[in-house]
Amino acid sequence: MGIPAEYGLRIGKMPAGRLNQITDVPGVSVSHVTLRQGRIQTGVTAVRPHQGNCFREKCPAAVHVINGFGKSTGLVQVQELGTIETPLLLTNTFSVGTASTALIRHMLEENPDIGTTTGSVNPVVFECNDGKLSDIRGMHVTEDHAKLALERSRNAEPSFEEGAVGAGTGMVCYGLKGGIGSASRLIGIGGITYTLGVMVLTNFGKVHELVIDGEHTGERIKEKCEDKYREEPDRGSIIVLIATDLPLTARQLGRISRRAQNGIARTGSITATGSGEIVLSFSTANRISHYPDADICGAEYLHEERLDTVFAAVCEAVEESIISSLLHAEVDEALTGKILSLKELLGDTNEKNNSIHAAGNVDPERMQWC
Amino acid sequence: MGIPAEYGLRIGKMPAGRLNQITDVPGVSVSHVTLRQGRIQTGVTAVRPHQGNCFREKCPAAVHVINGFGKSTGLVQVQELGTIETPLLLTNTFSVGTASTALIRHMLEENPDIGTTTGSVNPVVFECNDGKLSDIRGMHVTEDHAKLALERSRNAEPSFEEGAVGAGTGMVCYGLKGGIGSASRLIGIGGITYTLGVMVLTNFGKVHELVIDGEHTGERIKEKCEDKYREEPDRGSIIVLIATDLPLTARQLGRISRRAQNGIARTGSITATGSGEIVLSFSTANRISHYPDADICGAEYLHEERLDTVFAAVCEAVEESIISSLLHAEVDEALTGKILSLKELLGDTNEKNNSIHAAGNVDPERMQWC
Amino acid sequence: MGIPAEYGLRIGKMPAGRLNQITDVPGVSVSHVTLRQGRIQTGVTAVRPHQGNCFREKCPAAVHVINGFGKSTGLVQVQELGTIETPLLLTNTFSVGTASTALIRHMLEENPDIGTTTGSVNPVVFECNDGKLSDIRGMHVTEDHAKLALERSRNAEPSFEEGAVGAGTGMVCYGLKGGIGSASRLIGIGGITYTLGVMVLTNFGKVHELVIDGEHTGERIKEKCEDKYREEPDRGSIIVLIATDLPLTARQLGRISRRAQNGIARTGSITATGSGEIVLSFSTANRISHYPDADICGAEYLHEERLDTVFAAVCEAVEESIISSLLHAEVDEALTGKILSLKELLGDTNEKNNSIHAAGNVDPERMQWC
Amino acid sequence: MGIPAEYGLRIGKMPAGRLNQITDVPGVSVSHVTLRQGRIQTGVTAVRPHQGNCFREKCPAAVHVINGFGKSTGLVQVQELGTIETPLLLTNTFSVGTASTALIRHMLEENPDIGTTTGSVNPVVFECNDGKLSDIRGMHVTEDHAKLALERSRNAEPSFEEGAVGAGTGMVCYGLKGGIGSASRLIGIGGITYTLGVMVLTNFGKVHELVIDGEHTGERIKEKCEDKYREEPDRGSIIVLIATDLPLTARQLGRISRRAQNGIARTGSITATGSGEIVLSFSTANRISHYPDADICGAEYLHEERLDTVFAAVCEAVEESIISSLLHAEVDEALTGKILSLKELLGDTNEKNNSIHAAGNVDPERMQWC
Repeated sequence: MGIPAEYGLRIGKMPAGRLNQITDVPGVSVSHVTLRQGRIQTGVTAVRPHQGNCFREKCPAAVHVINGFGKSTGLVQVQELGTIETPLLLTNTFSVGTASTALIRHMLEENPDIGTTTGSVNPVVFECNDGKLSDIRGMHVTEDHAKLALERSRNAEPSFEEGAVGAGTGMVCYGLKGGIGSASRLIGIGGITYTLGVMVLTNFGKVHELVIDGEHTGERIKEKCEDKYREEPDRGSIIVLIATDLPLTARQLGRISRRAQNGIARTGSITATGSGEIVLSFSTANRISHYPDADICGAEYLHEERLDTVFAAVCEAVEESIISSLLHAEVDEALTGKILSLKELLGDTNEKNNSIHAAGNVDPERMQWC
Repeated sequence: MGIPAEYGLRIGKMPAGRLNQITDVPGVSVSHVTLRQGRIQTGVTAVRPHQGNCFREKCPAAVHVINGFGKSTGLVQVQELGTIETPLLLTNTFSVGTASTALIRHMLEENPDIGTTTGSVNPVVFECNDGKLSDIRGMHVTEDHAKLALERSRNAEPSFEEGAVGAGTGMVCYGLKGGIGSASRLIGIGGITYTLGVMVLTNFGKVHELVIDGEHTGERIKEKCEDKYREEPDRGSIIVLIATDLPLTARQLGRISRRAQNGIARTGSITATGSGEIVLSFSTANRISHYPDADICGAEYLHEERLDTVFAAVCEAVEESIISSLLHAEVDEALTGKILSLKELLGDTNEKNNSIHAAGNVDPERMQWC
Repeated sequence: MGIPAEYGLRIGKMPAGRLNQITDVPGVSVSHVTLRQGRIQTGVTAVRPHQGNCFREKCPAAVHVINGFGKSTGLVQVQELGTIETPLLLTNTFSVGTASTALIRHMLEENPDIGTTTGSVNPVVFECNDGKLSDIRGMHVTEDHAKLALERSRNAEPSFEEGAVGAGTGMVCYGLKGGIGSASRLIGIGGITYTLGVMVLTNFGKVHELVIDGEHTGERIKEKCEDKYREEPDRGSIIVLIATDLPLTARQLGRISRRAQNGIARTGSITATGSGEIVLSFSTANRISHYPDADICGAEYLHEERLDTVFAAVCEAVEESIISSLLHAEVDEALTGKILSLKELLGDTNEKNNSIHAAGNVDPERMQWC
Repeated sequence: MGIPAEYGLRIGKMPAGRLNQITDVPGVSVSHVTLRQGRIQTGVTAVRPHQGNCFREKCPAAVHVINGFGKSTGLVQVQELGTIETPLLLTNTFSVGTASTALIRHMLEENPDIGTTTGSVNPVVFECNDGKLSDIRGMHVTEDHAKLALERSRNAEPSFEEGAVGAGTGMVCYGLKGGIGSASRLIGIGGITYTLGVMVLTNFGKVHELVIDGEHTGERIKEKCEDKYREEPDRGSIIVLIATDLPLTARQLGRISRRAQNGIARTGSITATGSGEIVLSFSTANRISHYPDADICGAEYLHEERLDTVFAAVCEAVEESIISSLLHAEVDEALTGKILSLKELLGDTNEKNNSIHAAGNVDPERMQWC
């Protein structure tokens, strides 16, 4: 959904897609399973790159590790082969193993050849640590939760919820409630309009670092509530998924992945030592068949000189996705007093004069949570 | 154990440690849990870098991916931070998630601070695909199996079993029964004797490629049994773990990791496209405290110019470990007719004239398995 | 020098060093040789990591390639060994070979053992393409120019010129005159004050992308001069050098290098496809002897958990260095009508009300250059 | 030429091309300029990927650094963009700058658009340190030498000289005279025969390490001459160039590059710390236009599952190329007593019974050089 229109804030200059979500890329779908009960604030999010058989029709893909304090799994094979062959899952740090096992079972059901007449399958699961708001040691995500997310993602409605939902349920970003965010950009090349979509799971940064479209909003929030924001190390992370229907090679997808850091940096991040910041990009053009018709295959790709527009789209969509995650994340009542949401801080649209740039003018009364 | 003396074969020129196993490095222990029942031929192997609290006292470490068609997990963080903070597990490809979850639980039990007052923990689990000999789709390894392996590894006897055991139970290497292998080398530097130990999980290569100390043994085995070795793609892998009590930095451990490929290549491998070949090296010197006494810490390291002896030790120990895995791997009766063991092929020591170089002189009668 | 005080602009919150230049790091020196004559607008800049024998006393170092459309040389060995062993040179793209040869000669003179009793030496030379303002095809930089820069850098005055000088003479950044910029930050750790200094060579970006402390200054400049800024591909680059007296390992220096991208992104860059963006970081603590006294050496290093302050310093100092390069770069009269300087655009300090945020309020009369 | 037939030695099982040289790949040419005069024993070798305009018609390419103690230049851009856009030069370590400058001038002459209407050009130059046999400090290679090599490479005869010639003139490999070596393999895929060719510049390893087709030839040479081979650190290097007319993507070329290490390891190398071991692979299929006709381009590529044959070809051709360099390298009379050639050691073909496996049976009389 990106940043709601009533905030009067526009990130960048490129047009967004219809939903301003990653699902604007045809075929991509997203679904959530949310666990929200007292100290349990966690979940699973599934992203399906296309609605066919992901193992038989792989997508070109690339991974970039901005900072490797992370436990995501399946990245090594993506780097070697330049493909993804499963839907992607996101969850909390200690549930990666469980989600990974569920994803393998999901793939085995769909593909009786895996592990018998053909080789294995590479499950890709991402994570952030929601231990600040959720009982992460309880390891509450089960294989059934992951399975449900995978099932829901099949032919899901394009529009999906952002904020404190799915894997984003318990996340904290810039000291505020974080979670799932998304945005998209349209790219016109050679008379054709392509789409690039981004989805993020935000769980990084300290409050004073937050910059919204150039405004040091975070500093102002912190000033008003100075004694209440205890200094803690930044142990968060961010996962960035980038999808596009542009024909890009795995090498080119690696290049666009590396621009996600620019988008993140625009929101103020220093990429803290304890942050797992990982980017995966995939293209839905140029499917790679598991069982090819011929030894020599053909593919299309964008000429290298045309990449700058794509890079700009990545920067804009990543920046907007992060802010969008903050503007959609609501605080569950079980978390009252533990964390604040930017959305609440800004109050209703009249109060904020239609401008997110007033974000620092927060009513101290709203901040009793600290 | 390395290559048994009766074969009259010595790899390289450097002296081996007492056991000629990775456990010659003081503090390192290895244990297995083996599942062997008809179509279930799999297991778990645990390697403990030291006998203290691995999370509180981390070891410098590095990872090198020779070929990334693999699903091992935990590698990203090792690459970023240059440390391991858990025991290491090895199992089959589809059990990585389960083993990973068990390893997290094991760490949580030991460390009540993880996920509460401190951050998360990075479980490192390696895998090879034993689907040719075992019912890998059955996902028979449970968290209890992994837990048992972890418990057994604590203060285990230094000597451990090699061959078709633990994670190696169902592995196939150069078309013969593979599995766990190990060897060690002593390195004298500045009047002190250090130890470098290697453990491998072997599951790669085609029979005709096998070279033993320069002899094209595999070609001769294949010739005698030509019509029986069906041409299949090489979907195997090899995991190489290197331990040493030499003080090496993470960067230097990366350098020794990259020499594992030389040792593997000496046994004939072309590093096939479907092979997950991953190396992890760690040093037991220079522990890194999770809760440091001071901001500025001290460490020792070997001067770069002295690394060549260490590199030679890696090449020798990796080569010997692979051959050792073949010479120790016995074929379970449930697998009769499915796979042959090099050990059986060579027959008793009298027959082979105390020389592994006679390996090709295999009695065709022994090969009814094909 | 960083951003001059009269602009009333402060990047970040950390204190700068005395000069607010990379030379605030004790021992580091910088010198320029400038070629400025009509169509020849180029030069050489030398950075000496310490005033001793750089070959005999190497510094821990790391390289990070943000975008590899660049021709800098010597990087491979820095990545492998984690050290630099020469002063660093910067020049234009086509003069890298010449500067590299001059640097080798300089090292050979100082070290009669190189190439005789010991191995070779690894010259590190960086470049940006100044072909827009200078006759780069003329290859006007000679070995003598590079030699002179090297000689001048020995025991040079700490304060050095920024802007259109040395390697920065012909550079273009965000469509404005770019060049050399520098800044520094003080870091208090454990009661000791350390210094981190940055020097950049700026030659990247398009005018509309420029952001100064959150303000979209570049957009406003472009609006006022819309028809005059022809759309051209961004073929520029940026070189970022980071020096510190903090004891950091090569791996840690790699980590701080990767934060330079955050600093660059804060000024608006999308890291264009044609941009060579390369970072080198070195520490002046922990010298590594070419001829060590012992096989086992000792070193200090900062505990990983303390890196966040260093990362913040990198972000601030890189951002400020880039803006500083723009604010110091003057346009040679031979270039009148070809390029505009931000400094001139802002006019005298009275006009700009002591605020760089007024940068967009440029007098159109000043823009006849376009 | 590969290993001359009279030695009765065949590396691997795949068929070689007509010349058994890299020039079996259509369009590839190689030429040398040799400087051989007393203490000056050095030179330049040029490899042209095709006979057209290399800048306008780039080849997909990849670089792999096995060990980075090297000073080759131009690698960063190949890694980023996956292309080469110049002929490749090889020379001694201290002449990289000079060769690089000459290569730029060569490209500027051919392309008036470089540095004016289009961007810059990325010269790729490789090196090994010939300082043991040549006066490397004298820096005797001039731009004219490099220019001559480039000119000679245009439409050169396919067959080219191997051994102590061009860049190989002063090289030492396994304690014996090294230099230029080459071999090729034919690969049948889908009814079409493709060619893969390798050229190496060998300058690495110690005598006792040398293994020829599994025989520890080097050990036997050293035994016979024990007191004469002084122990010296291995300061050498190896450059491996791989060419093919198979349609491979840059990512796939990276994968085949990584198999060069297997081929090198088969000859006994431990990849010493002081060795610069660098591989570049390129494909002559799928040219990439500098000025494309369209934004979306098409390309062919080999399906990933078919790569194993290509990997086997790399292993064989690299192994044979190295041995070929030793078997062709003659010792200039100015070097008598300084180095021995394997060719001379083996004597005439009658003496050696047509078998290289007798290489160790060297006549001590021939070894007065030590």
